[in-house]
Amino acid sequence: MLLYGTGAVGSLYGGKLAQAGAGVSTVCRSDFKEVSETGIQIKSVFGDYHFKPEAVVKKGGDYSYRPDYVIVATKVLPEIDVAEMIKDSVYPETSIVLLQNGIDIEKSIAARFSNNEIISGLAFVCSSRTGYGQIEHTDYGRLVLGIYPGGISPKVELLAEMFRAAGVPTEAEEDVIAARWKKLIWNAPFNPLSVICSGADTSEMMSDDKIQELSRSIMEEVIQLASADGHPLDMALIEKNITDTIRMKPYKTSMLLDYEAGRPMEVEAILGNAVRIAGKNSIQVPHIKTVYALLDILNKRNLSVKTIPRSHR
Amino acid sequence: MLLYGTGAVGSLYGGKLAQAGAGVSTVCRSDFKEVSETGIQIKSVFGDYHFKPEAVVKKGGDYSYRPDYVIVATKVLPEIDVAEMIKDSVYPETSIVLLQNGIDIEKSIAARFSNNEIISGLAFVCSSRTGYGQIEHTDYGRLVLGIYPGGISPKVELLAEMFRAAGVPTEAEEDVIAARWKKLIWNAPFNPLSVICSGADTSEMMSDDKIQELSRSIMEEVIQLASADGHPLDMALIEKNITDTIRMKPYKTSMLLDYEAGRPMEVEAILGNAVRIAGKNSIQVPHIKTVYALLDILNKRNLSVKTIPRSHR
Repeated sequence: MLLYGTGAVGSLYGGKLAQAGAGVSTVCRSDFKEVSETGIQIKSVFGDYHFKPEAVVKKGGDYSYRPDYVIVATKVLPEIDVAEMIKDSVYPETSIVLLQNGIDIEKSIAARFSNNEIISGLAFVCSSRTGYGQIEHTDYGRLVLGIYPGGISPKVELLAEMFRAAGVPTEAEEDVIAARWKKLIWNAPFNPLSVICSGADTSEMMSDDKIQELSRSIMEEVIQLASADGHPLDMALIEKNITDTIRMKPYKTSMLLDYEAGRPMEVEAILGNAVRIAGKNSIQVPHIKTVYALLDILNKRNLSVKTIPRSHR
Repeated sequence: MLLYGTGAVGSLYGGKLAQAGAGVSTVCRSDFKEVSETGIQIKSVFGDYHFKPEAVVKKGGDYSYRPDYVIVATKVLPEIDVAEMIKDSVYPETSIVLLQNGIDIEKSIAARFSNNEIISGLAFVCSSRTGYGQIEHTDYGRLVLGIYPGGISPKVELLAEMFRAAGVPTEAEEDVIAARWKKLIWNAPFNPLSVICSGADTSEMMSDDKIQELSRSIMEEVIQLASADGHPLDMALIEKNITDTIRMKPYKTSMLLDYEAGRPMEVEAILGNAVRIAGKNSIQVPHIKTVYALLDILNKRNLSVKTIPRSHR
């Protein structure tokens, strides 16, 4: 297996597959030195473990084997051309696993590699990279895997089995696009609002009546879009998400952590793609569109400050 | 005349009336010492001038005379009960002038002083208080005055004449509520967005396509509300406001200056009241509502930091 992206998510799950006995190699760029020399240390609620990749290469073309699985765990960003990045390591038998956030993130890869199996993966996890080769996994951790655009294959089931063997709760999902929409119900309001509300955690957001109401409005729009996209979801998911979020331990979203660290946020994956789907289906999503415009400019302004990261506090 | 509020707007215009020969006294609290000892120095594009109030008192009840005009130039904030503040200085013949920002800011005063003439006043001005007794007026300056809820009276015309005599371009307006809605077309998007976009000036906001589009959406909603409120406005005002804002010298809104200084913002006057008018008229204003929720929480969070002002930069 070849893993692209040794950040918070890739390292955690790549390491778990290695624990399950898979030969997992990694493509590393900024962290090449640390990972090749000392591997990756994962402090995890699954139990701490060390991940020493079989091989560490700088680009896909340097990997000598034909991978059964290419796992993409990079952030979804306009500047990362995933197809370009992985093409030299993709063979006819290779399943491409997109272990990434957002909605509609598979389409361009599926179009480019139209003869390859595309496995779409969702990670429900609180994990962050604290340094090169250093990961901290603090909560949750389950995975959902399915064929894009739908179905379950033997290779999906095999991958799920390996994760489970290493202790990761993993579900094989027939309708993985529906699962992405379902996850977006939570991510679409809370990731952006945590940033726009000047660095608020989930507790601070939920304590505010207007923000709670705005969250519901965004969730309603997500459900509308899911339905138009052919994946109807239950409106009851709104109250469930609100209640769960009120109850959870106060949590700073990964988007907020990116913002505070001066890293690019996944604006298009979480909001922009949803806005485009709305346009295609002639659906009005004024709440999502408003938040999208604000998050987008905050992202641009954050990245234009070249020295210290912009922080609201 | 008795002036409440010796901030950027009150001092500028109170001083002008004094220049025109009116006896203008001021109610001062935090700046009582400075204003009673040395008056107010106004650095102004009208020409610099000094304003020495006839009398400076700490509360309306300390003012010995029966004012022809009580001028309220305080910020519109929930914590400032204007009726309570002015009641000891309001006589049957007193005209109450509300020289304040926002929409629907006259109603509670008009209800409380139902036998008094209420003059609603709009200032189109760039002015800030740089210290106690120190005002800097950098641009614009015209006034619009009219009877609330409509019409022009002899006392409106007299007040307008006095302002003009002192060099302030002033219009007496038959439909001052329409004038307020018209001003809100500009204030409703740009004041809040300048804050939410982490301290953006007008140029930075207008250079961003999505923020420009969002501004138009907010303006459309304002025009819808104005119409429902019985004061139809021309949709062409949207393009005019956009074009004017693109052309103006880059400008930091007064709301942004308040935010950066840790002062309360006029959230209800600029957005909250509009949202309530929408509710009463069963009009959907999702863009305004979204921005209102965000501005409101940013205001609360800004005021809860008791030490240094919160700043995005």
